[in-house]
Amino acid sequence: MEGFISGNDGGIKGLKDLKASLGDVDNYLNHNDAPSSSNDDDSKISFRSLCRSTTHTGPTNGKCPGFLQCNLVVLRKEDAFDFLLFCQRNSKACPIVDVCENGSFNPTGVTKSSDLRTDLPAYNVYSNGKLVQGNLSDVRSLWPSDGVAFLLGCSFTFDHVLIANRISARHIEMKRNVSMYKTNLKCREAGRFKGNVVVTMRPVKGGDVAKVVTLSCKYPEAHGAPIHIGSPSDLGIADLSKPDWGDPVEVREGEVPVFHACGVTSQEVIMSSGVSFAITHSPGCMFVSDKIID
Amino acid sequence: MEGFISGNDGGIKGLKDLKASLGDVDNYLNHNDAPSSSNDDDSKISFRSLCRSTTHTGPTNGKCPGFLQCNLVVLRKEDAFDFLLFCQRNSKACPIVDVCENGSFNPTGVTKSSDLRTDLPAYNVYSNGKLVQGNLSDVRSLWPSDGVAFLLGCSFTFDHVLIANRISARHIEMKRNVSMYKTNLKCREAGRFKGNVVVTMRPVKGGDVAKVVTLSCKYPEAHGAPIHIGSPSDLGIADLSKPDWGDPVEVREGEVPVFHACGVTSQEVIMSSGVSFAITHSPGCMFVSDKIID
Repeated sequence: MEGFISGNDGGIKGLKDLKASLGDVDNYLNHNDAPSSSNDDDSKISFRSLCRSTTHTGPTNGKCPGFLQCNLVVLRKEDAFDFLLFCQRNSKACPIVDVCENGSFNPTGVTKSSDLRTDLPAYNVYSNGKLVQGNLSDVRSLWPSDGVAFLLGCSFTFDHVLIANRISARHIEMKRNVSMYKTNLKCREAGRFKGNVVVTMRPVKGGDVAKVVTLSCKYPEAHGAPIHIGSPSDLGIADLSKPDWGDPVEVREGEVPVFHACGVTSQEVIMSSGVSFAITHSPGCMFVSDKIID
Repeated sequence: MEGFISGNDGGIKGLKDLKASLGDVDNYLNHNDAPSSSNDDDSKISFRSLCRSTTHTGPTNGKCPGFLQCNLVVLRKEDAFDFLLFCQRNSKACPIVDVCENGSFNPTGVTKSSDLRTDLPAYNVYSNGKLVQGNLSDVRSLWPSDGVAFLLGCSFTFDHVLIANRISARHIEMKRNVSMYKTNLKCREAGRFKGNVVVTMRPVKGGDVAKVVTLSCKYPEAHGAPIHIGSPSDLGIADLSKPDWGDPVEVREGEVPVFHACGVTSQEVIMSSGVSFAITHSPGCMFVSDKIID
């Protein structure tokens, strides 16, 4: 597999061995491009099979801990440059994990082999900025021949790290999707792409808020540190119990709402910009990659 | 100026003030997008004027310490997506600092007002992958109407930090351009763009090598930590005294060659890929931005 260090190659002893095992130099030069190592844990492959067979069609929070989860955006080639630039300019909300070659649905930067048309639990389809189909389980018949697929990191990726540090993840405890809200924070525009930042919200005990910051900031590909802590109204959120996507979760006495940037920003932007055609994941129903994040 | 926090606005007290002073949320969300603050130091504006008037036409190492220096690549729109993806996939060598809107030559993400067609000391022009003109001081007549301008960070940016830490910067001491070499390390391809990594080399005393790593790694937009330390032959470099770009510098007894990825990788790639048309800076003759890096 191009760009991966295979555990089967044995120890990496020098640059030549490294290069021989890589085929190219991505892992050596750029930690963002590919898994840091291979892994015998096949949970993510099994999980993608469950999605492909439509056995699993719901949110992915709590699934396959330790592997990077991703938002999906598929656009026609004519929109690809502007969107890539948009992500570059708004990397906190839209951290690019991989971009497939034109027409391809196999993200070789983050999996050995997978099919983005079937391997997510659920998909949305947008036409002229409007959601026209939701919760599809297979988009093979809709995938454009010139489609460019973008994978953007998701904060579900670090939930197990919070849990391991004894910080409750309410949406996982309650077996619900995370709460997501459109904010009043404007993204930096790029070409035709414009819109507002979407955030996730996790209720966190006062004594744990700093820990959530220091833990999540280690995962910039999964949105990193929170962008806002406390008052929802500063973000233009009127009522936490009415999320724009996902499910409401309880905020208990003594807990503070902690807001991370969310990749669903890309869907808000697809709508606000009136993009002619897009396929995305259904919010909360992410692509689980092979990329190990810790 | 869009996207900048103006020092004249007084203290930033809350999110609303921050948003009011920003116009958009880039600085709040994404440290990569714009200067961290304004600054009364006008040295970089004066320096760009010297370039515009063709008073300064040489390398920029040692100029305007504290401001991010950038490589320039201008391509036709048809090549822009593939190149942006190439930079995304090879961010160690090609860290994106700003991308202008189609046809624009004013990089609003990193300067209040500047003209990329005149404000660099010297330019190269490539046609069908070949260098056809070098050391031009003004490219206004050559700039394509559909040109997309990319700015990529440069390691000159942290030279003054090394000097402040009593680590010699030989190329500055010797008043020479830095030494640059094409290596045998292959970049990860993107569309038509392919080629090898170019590196800079700084000779460093054995006792200072770790310091160079820990200091430069703080500047990922300026290539961050070295990609290789020691044996040039591992990188396919036969003779350090014969750099592919820039000037040779002396490596003294007890010094180790320290190699950082270099933005001239983009020019190597323009040549290797046979790109139809490109304007770039002349290696070592960078664009000095307003972006403060420490």
